[in-house]
Amino acid sequence: MPMPTPTDQLSETFAALADPTRRAMLARLTKGEASVQELAKPFKMSLPAISKHLKVLEKSGLIERARVAQSRPCRLQTKPIKDAVEWLEHHRKLWEDRLDNLDAYLAELQKNQKQNETEKEK
Amino acid sequence: MPMPTPTDQLSETFAALADPTRRAMLARLTKGEASVQELAKPFKMSLPAISKHLKVLEKSGLIERARVAQSRPCRLQTKPIKDAVEWLEHHRKLWEDRLDNLDAYLAELQKNQKQNETEKEK
Repeated sequence: MPMPTPTDQLSETFAALADPTRRAMLARLTKGEASVQELAKPFKMSLPAISKHLKVLEKSGLIERARVAQSRPCRLQTKPIKDAVEWLEHHRKLWEDRLDNLDAYLAELQKNQKQNETEKEK
Repeated sequence: MPMPTPTDQLSETFAALADPTRRAMLARLTKGEASVQELAKPFKMSLPAISKHLKVLEKSGLIERARVAQSRPCRLQTKPIKDAVEWLEHHRKLWEDRLDNLDAYLAELQKNQKQNETEKEK
């Protein structure tokens, strides 16, 4: 699968997340460290293919791999996930606030219109 | 830039977010609807390039384009952003709970060890 070549951290994070195998690996890692073999188990995939996915995850900073043990277990890193959530939440909030303001404005408009009509009827 | 070919909604969302131009477009759209020309303004990019980015955003469901007006203004959709945040938050929480449990376990271990040492000294 061709990968985009992101130039910034946030793009790397989102690109790494844009694959169901990699997300399944991250989900597995929420239960604790795992070796490449353990991570590979649920997938019908060659070890080189698994290794490629892990490299994308490692490069994005979503996981780190121990330098000491021979199995070089993988573990999750929360900083990139946190940054991604922050970006999304910030923009979602901006947009929803805008929709709320629009709703409030329309409600106000409707109220004024009704008032005008009632005054005309008097 | 070659794009991956995601097969599921969440992958499409993350792939669409993995580009600074597309994220800047989404950020602009939090301020309200905009035409393609308005969205293109801040970028030194050809209209076809802009159009390509918009198609990725539209296909992922992050934006929708009005079918009525001739300018077909773009507007943000929150459902895919919400789903992406939920996925990330869920897994971040699982991982952080795990780290908290590990911390608590280590603290307990340390406490027991100290108690044992104090009892031995008696």
